[in-house]
Amino acid sequence: MDTRTSETRLRIERLRDALAAHGAQAVFVPSSDPHLSEYLPGRWQGREWLSGFTGSMGSLVVTRDRAALFADSRYWDQAEAQLAGSGIELQKTSSGASTQYIEWIAQQLHAGDTLAVDGQVLGLALANALRAGLGRKGITLRTDTDLLQQAWDDRPTLPMDAVYEHLPPQAAVSRADKLARVRAAMGTIGATHHLVSTVDDVAWLLNLRGSDVECNPVFIAHLLLDLQGGRLFIGSGKVPADVAARLSTDGIQLAAYDQAAAALAALPADATLLIDPRRVTLGLREAVPAGVKVVEQINPSTLLKSRKTPAEAVFIREAMAEDGAAMCEFYADFEASLARGERWSELDVDAKLSAQRRKRKGFVGLSFSTIAGWMANGAQPHYRALPESFAQIEGNGLLLIDSGGQYLGGTTDITRVWPIGTVSAEQKRDYTLVLKGTLALSRTRFPRGTLSPMLDAIARAPLWEHGLDYGHGTGHGVGYFMNVHEGPQSISKAIPEATMAMEPGMITSIEPGLYRPGLWGVRIENLVLNVAIDTPEKNAFGEMLEFETLTLCPIDTRCLDRSLLRADEIAWLNGYHATVRERLQPLVSGPALAWLLARTEPVSA
Amino acid sequence: MDTRTSETRLRIERLRDALAAHGAQAVFVPSSDPHLSEYLPGRWQGREWLSGFTGSMGSLVVTRDRAALFADSRYWDQAEAQLAGSGIELQKTSSGASTQYIEWIAQQLHAGDTLAVDGQVLGLALANALRAGLGRKGITLRTDTDLLQQAWDDRPTLPMDAVYEHLPPQAAVSRADKLARVRAAMGTIGATHHLVSTVDDVAWLLNLRGSDVECNPVFIAHLLLDLQGGRLFIGSGKVPADVAARLSTDGIQLAAYDQAAAALAALPADATLLIDPRRVTLGLREAVPAGVKVVEQINPSTLLKSRKTPAEAVFIREAMAEDGAAMCEFYADFEASLARGERWSELDVDAKLSAQRRKRKGFVGLSFSTIAGWMANGAQPHYRALPESFAQIEGNGLLLIDSGGQYLGGTTDITRVWPIGTVSAEQKRDYTLVLKGTLALSRTRFPRGTLSPMLDAIARAPLWEHGLDYGHGTGHGVGYFMNVHEGPQSISKAIPEATMAMEPGMITSIEPGLYRPGLWGVRIENLVLNVAIDTPEKNAFGEMLEFETLTLCPIDTRCLDRSLLRADEIAWLNGYHATVRERLQPLVSGPALAWLLARTEPVSA
Repeated sequence: MDTRTSETRLRIERLRDALAAHGAQAVFVPSSDPHLSEYLPGRWQGREWLSGFTGSMGSLVVTRDRAALFADSRYWDQAEAQLAGSGIELQKTSSGASTQYIEWIAQQLHAGDTLAVDGQVLGLALANALRAGLGRKGITLRTDTDLLQQAWDDRPTLPMDAVYEHLPPQAAVSRADKLARVRAAMGTIGATHHLVSTVDDVAWLLNLRGSDVECNPVFIAHLLLDLQGGRLFIGSGKVPADVAARLSTDGIQLAAYDQAAAALAALPADATLLIDPRRVTLGLREAVPAGVKVVEQINPSTLLKSRKTPAEAVFIREAMAEDGAAMCEFYADFEASLARGERWSELDVDAKLSAQRRKRKGFVGLSFSTIAGWMANGAQPHYRALPESFAQIEGNGLLLIDSGGQYLGGTTDITRVWPIGTVSAEQKRDYTLVLKGTLALSRTRFPRGTLSPMLDAIARAPLWEHGLDYGHGTGHGVGYFMNVHEGPQSISKAIPEATMAMEPGMITSIEPGLYRPGLWGVRIENLVLNVAIDTPEKNAFGEMLEFETLTLCPIDTRCLDRSLLRADEIAWLNGYHATVRERLQPLVSGPALAWLLARTEPVSA
Repeated sequence: MDTRTSETRLRIERLRDALAAHGAQAVFVPSSDPHLSEYLPGRWQGREWLSGFTGSMGSLVVTRDRAALFADSRYWDQAEAQLAGSGIELQKTSSGASTQYIEWIAQQLHAGDTLAVDGQVLGLALANALRAGLGRKGITLRTDTDLLQQAWDDRPTLPMDAVYEHLPPQAAVSRADKLARVRAAMGTIGATHHLVSTVDDVAWLLNLRGSDVECNPVFIAHLLLDLQGGRLFIGSGKVPADVAARLSTDGIQLAAYDQAAAALAALPADATLLIDPRRVTLGLREAVPAGVKVVEQINPSTLLKSRKTPAEAVFIREAMAEDGAAMCEFYADFEASLARGERWSELDVDAKLSAQRRKRKGFVGLSFSTIAGWMANGAQPHYRALPESFAQIEGNGLLLIDSGGQYLGGTTDITRVWPIGTVSAEQKRDYTLVLKGTLALSRTRFPRGTLSPMLDAIARAPLWEHGLDYGHGTGHGVGYFMNVHEGPQSISKAIPEATMAMEPGMITSIEPGLYRPGLWGVRIENLVLNVAIDTPEKNAFGEMLEFETLTLCPIDTRCLDRSLLRADEIAWLNGYHATVRERLQPLVSGPALAWLLARTEPVSA
């Protein structure tokens, strides 16, 4: 048993002590924080601390004698590797949204038993599902205690970094305008108050940014709005005095982070509170007095935030060009270096590519940890090379790089697959079939209001035709100098909801893939912007949207199996490369320019 | 005001008298019967009787001073025409499943008012939605009375026609086997009893057929199964003695139709009753004693029925060939007759085509009323020519014919569009774009278990590309000598449910369309069978399904705009025509054979 796994066993045992001390039979540790964020500050990474599994999604259940991690197919390989020897079993779930652990808990416990969960990090929908699923078997849910706190001696504190303003010209809509729009939405449903716990909603609404979460420029805070002003519940000292003064001008006063529940408890009896039930925890929801009328609906800011304005789109296009230029500089250097016989590891790729991004205008930081996966590592969709575990790029094959940056004028996310040495016919076939999926969806036009999941099959169809598929979604929404995963839209097999209607200004990724465990992985990803088009028959058939491909970087053409491509697909690829060349040419010079020109050469059918 | 609309006004007034007599402020008349069937025996066609609107879907609300019909886009043109002058307003809904009328009722009535609905024809889900939507405004729902009965003097009685057995070889699975499979499904959830109210489930399960509903070979009955036997609640005298005896052998006893509620009321206290909440009315649900445990889930027979067996598929292919031969005979005669200068009306098309079907082996009746729509009439997706209102086929343009038959070995449903005289470039473009949609989906392979609505966009994409769309679904499930619309699968914008998973053996239509109100309509429809394919990478990527196109009839190639078709699309079309020629050639001779050979000639790119 290595040090890591013996440490894991020890932590689980300490948690079991806390379990026993509280008379509970099991504890559920979701991957969530008081803001139900996708990425968590260290303080709330208890699942990772306990299990050693570093994937971004997954839920842990620890009973007196068993421990199980629930994760979907994206993480199976990774989880199997990281859980080996820990005594924690991997339970494979059908999707990231699966709540299979409820059934598992119901099977493990008996009537009269208690399951402990920290209500401060438990979403309402999940709390209801747990209560219903366990209640049937007579199992009690206890949410008023945080067992993790008692097992975790050196638990990180709340992040203390200062917040800063996102300023014009990139912050193209003022804080006052955004607040007015949200209040207008509150007005239509008669809400007098509105609690926003989602950190990217808070940051967007107040034109503030922070660095409390790795790669996401957000900060830990709750916002309680009323019709005139609002209170920002945030760690003491995080807001500089000048920023606090400007917030105050817009009616926003600061309050202590831990006072949000008390403020809710003090709402007037005739208040009508708007909350997004999927974005508020049980802990805060239960603080609302029984008399207050609660209207549940998606946060208005989530919908407003998803629709980038034309002024923002101008900056986004600039950020995409800067990001594409960084990619050119990197790949030119990388290829020349390999040609000289120099050795590169996956970690070198990350370091050198990040260094190129850091040189670009407006760059703030990475938008997520770079995935540089050589061959079999590329077959793990969420792989990350670590100093203790990474591969050297050697021999022949495919290198998958999924990376992105935060710029003052936008957020990027791009995946390319690059051939190293000689690429096999099978690799070319896989690469080309994935590219066909990316192209097929990129070219699709669709009625405004189409529920985004309904587009998913279009990207998969070229793979399905050959009996292939991928286990993750096709695309996620992307923020504006904000989270790289942003709702409400997503192109996936998720059951569509009305809030997922495609609207002009939304940005989404298109990233089909194909993974051969132990061999190689392929994923080709661009970001696209929903653009309304003026079709001649708009009045009769409704408004149509098309995707403007925002990402600017060559898609390797040496990996193509041209026999699988139709003439119209090659024409699209050549057209894309002409645009990439035209847009990036002014930003690069020397070897990077030469590389750009070579890699954007049109291909023939 | 014409006779029809004055009669409609009179009927609405009579209903208002009943309203007043019962102290209710509004009555809701859904298009439903005690079995929640899609097509209703005359007795339950109260919405049509009251409003004059003959569409197959639509809901009527009558208040003391207003009357409104709610219908989706498929019916808007038809409803506007049929409601003109009636005083009934058309409320346009976004889909057939929309319950917009609930909001409308809530707006019309006041707190303390009463809405009357006949609970015997009110589905549970709708009852709950009505209660919730109206309860919020303090409006009471009264479900214990049928106001229609009091307004409708000459209301049709229950259908009296005899039922008959569906016999081997076409009935390839025995009644005992089907009952055993349903009981196995009951066993897995611990159900001791199971109420089946859905008429096609009852008919399928018992291998019985009837003629109580136009074009659907079903009969009005409820079935209450227990683990040993069951009771069939059916009109007296409908089951011939020999059939009753064979049912008895399989443990099924006859009972009076109106005794179903009493039988439910008499269930033992320890019973566990399986019902499909979307397939049982409030009237029957409320008859179940409070102590009985009710498990709600889709009827097992619905899932079993949807998956046609290989033995059934053999008969279906035969029925499709017979149906295709009828189409060839008809079209050959029709074209020759037009060439001779003879005049045809839409009614002639219906009569002659039906006559050709009647000559075919195994034919039982039409599977729905023929839609023969010349030009502007083809733009009404659910048009039906009537003796009092039909068009002559004259001049140049497009004739849309949507028709189908019930055969002992299967149910057919086919739409073709035929050019008459000279067809314009715009008509050819519309025709070709619709055909591209039919082809695109027909060729799609997809993972077993894909939720059928997720495939919808694939058929629409070629139309979307040109800013066009259609308001109806892309495809519906089809029965086996059974209802032409059969669930659970459907290819449409419907929010997918787990029960809609695509499985081998399911039959679905693929029927994209394009409608230009006042001008012409295009729809090209084939039926397809889900077939599992043996892909080399099945173990790694899962089982794949493909569509076997079942429908056998030329797709007109004179209407093609070949500039819009890719080589692979033309290859598919030529391949289909080669199959049609090969399969139909043995069944036709003389002019029909010559016509078949001419219309299945390959086209060049």
